[in-house]
Amino acid sequence: MDHAGRLRRLVSAIDEHGLDSLLVTHLPNVRYLCGFTGSAAALLVADRGCILFTDGRYRIQAREEIATAKVRNVRIVIDRKAPVLAVGEWLATRRSGSSRVSVGVEAESITAGMRDRLASAMKGKGRVRSAPPLVERARMVKDAGEILRIRRAVELGASLFRTARKKIRPGVKEVEVAAAMECEARLGGAEGMSFSTILAAGARSAVVHGRASAARIPRRGFVVCDFGVILAGYCSDRTRTVHVGHPSREARHLYEAVLEAQEAAIAAVRPGATAAQVDGAARRVLRQRKLARYFTHSTGHGLGLEIHEAPRLAAGQSQKLEPGMVITIEPGVYVPGKWGVRIEDVVVVTSSGCEVLTPTDKELVVI
Amino acid sequence: MDHAGRLRRLVSAIDEHGLDSLLVTHLPNVRYLCGFTGSAAALLVADRGCILFTDGRYRIQAREEIATAKVRNVRIVIDRKAPVLAVGEWLATRRSGSSRVSVGVEAESITAGMRDRLASAMKGKGRVRSAPPLVERARMVKDAGEILRIRRAVELGASLFRTARKKIRPGVKEVEVAAAMECEARLGGAEGMSFSTILAAGARSAVVHGRASAARIPRRGFVVCDFGVILAGYCSDRTRTVHVGHPSREARHLYEAVLEAQEAAIAAVRPGATAAQVDGAARRVLRQRKLARYFTHSTGHGLGLEIHEAPRLAAGQSQKLEPGMVITIEPGVYVPGKWGVRIEDVVVVTSSGCEVLTPTDKELVVI
Repeated sequence: MDHAGRLRRLVSAIDEHGLDSLLVTHLPNVRYLCGFTGSAAALLVADRGCILFTDGRYRIQAREEIATAKVRNVRIVIDRKAPVLAVGEWLATRRSGSSRVSVGVEAESITAGMRDRLASAMKGKGRVRSAPPLVERARMVKDAGEILRIRRAVELGASLFRTARKKIRPGVKEVEVAAAMECEARLGGAEGMSFSTILAAGARSAVVHGRASAARIPRRGFVVCDFGVILAGYCSDRTRTVHVGHPSREARHLYEAVLEAQEAAIAAVRPGATAAQVDGAARRVLRQRKLARYFTHSTGHGLGLEIHEAPRLAAGQSQKLEPGMVITIEPGVYVPGKWGVRIEDVVVVTSSGCEVLTPTDKELVVI
Repeated sequence: MDHAGRLRRLVSAIDEHGLDSLLVTHLPNVRYLCGFTGSAAALLVADRGCILFTDGRYRIQAREEIATAKVRNVRIVIDRKAPVLAVGEWLATRRSGSSRVSVGVEAESITAGMRDRLASAMKGKGRVRSAPPLVERARMVKDAGEILRIRRAVELGASLFRTARKKIRPGVKEVEVAAAMECEARLGGAEGMSFSTILAAGARSAVVHGRASAARIPRRGFVVCDFGVILAGYCSDRTRTVHVGHPSREARHLYEAVLEAQEAAIAAVRPGATAAQVDGAARRVLRQRKLARYFTHSTGHGLGLEIHEAPRLAAGQSQKLEPGMVITIEPGVYVPGKWGVRIEDVVVVTSSGCEVLTPTDKELVVI
């Protein structure tokens, strides 16, 4: 992972936007730029060097992680105060500070209260400006080290579906299946799950975010399993829908329609295609099957250090795909009170199309 | 749970602070006030009624949860836009809007970007002002329904320690112990853990936030287990430290010092005592034992819908305790590279002192 290169490119972007420095406060961004994983941090990035502000709990960890990331121009400041306040006071004491200096902040993560306190702590030595999401933009395209980590996370995640298949039986509680999967993830090295495991059986399969509940799996019906792990900081995300009991012809048709939509969207992924086009490819298949109105969410999202990152694959999203972007493709159809099906994979955009991470047979599994 | 009363009292507080309305965006606050648990919400609270803004995914859920909470004066507005923007546009179209109307925002949770977009969406129909943490203040004192839920969560949490005691053996990985506890929590009905389980064995017990790792439990040493569940929305938090192998006299002394500090702090909890006094009571014991410099964190924190809430039990905190507050008491001693001990319970402030939730024998457990 080329942390030093990331910082270097960010410094150029900061300059292009007419800022003198950028105060990075979104913790996944701090981690992305300098490797620090503590829970209290603010990273001041500027041409003349970077400063990581954190507190005494992280004295040793900060030094070790910064050394591992090989970012030589990052200095560490330990302060008892909230990191953003420590930055403000530090800026206030600089001799070179002037009201003309522009400090960019990450307006989508810093709280309004914190921005106000930062501005007042600076005592006129610089102006606080909302910066565009420069780090999030950079994070959209993953480097080889990141793709490797996501691949490992997806592999571990995929292995949990075997546990699910064994556990899913009529009468078993959804949460029992989830518990077995989560235990397996932990034993496989996961720091945790990337989101609350979705296990939605029978009529509950129509609930898009049906977190595993105490409901028992019925004798017949779909079971949507949507799950992901965090492994070495990176997220996985996968959905498989199985059918308990003999599926009706209508159930099979529904499943095939969703699978066809998913494959159409995967086929649409290539450099230069827009996020909206990929979304449209899935939606078109479902429209032909008169199911489009039951597809109530977007087709996918980027993932990496966070489970939801840019780009968003939805109507109106003009973001063009580029090699190295890692996105989910997850169309679904939900008929309220009746049933639902979702099928999801993670794909990496390549120079000519995309690679599905850990591809598996997606024929309907009947239990 | 008296949601209607909570809203009524908040309306008074809004008025006392010279605001015309308060825009509640911190999701635990939204849940506290009107029962809604969705992941996208903004609740506009005003004398003349409240409006919950959310999106189409939550149409049915919002209606059901608002009905369950029995808050008759909460109207629901479904909008595709981000809830805060929907609020801004709604305010802009009001006939009664004027630049003199003050809309309070929760400055410690709303992002700077969102506050800016809210202000511009309002088009001059009102002024955005940072409000004090009115809902957080109210949430400090729990009602009977909340205390009951926290009690149930603490009971479930406490039961996990039995699993830990069975699992902790030399050679077992920390994460295997955590996985077994987390599985048990799920099967016991928990929505999840209230934080990443801490399982820190041997020299790692000196790491205050030593999340369960792949490290194996050594043949001899302390094992710090700090864990909590979320049950029906409410958090538990408990720490027990056990010793694997025969404890040295020094290890026993260390454990007894921490236990004495914890009991001194519990004894100091009563209405009218300040948060700093409770913290000081634990610190005094450790100072007498010449261990105070190894006690590197605060003595405790409030908990409820969130794992960390006000008040904070630390030096300088003048907040007075009141009956109904629920706080953790968790002093610890950490000698870097050597060992650490922490003992934690949840207590409820009563009219005369406090009640320890699910008290247990705290003699040193030797495995």
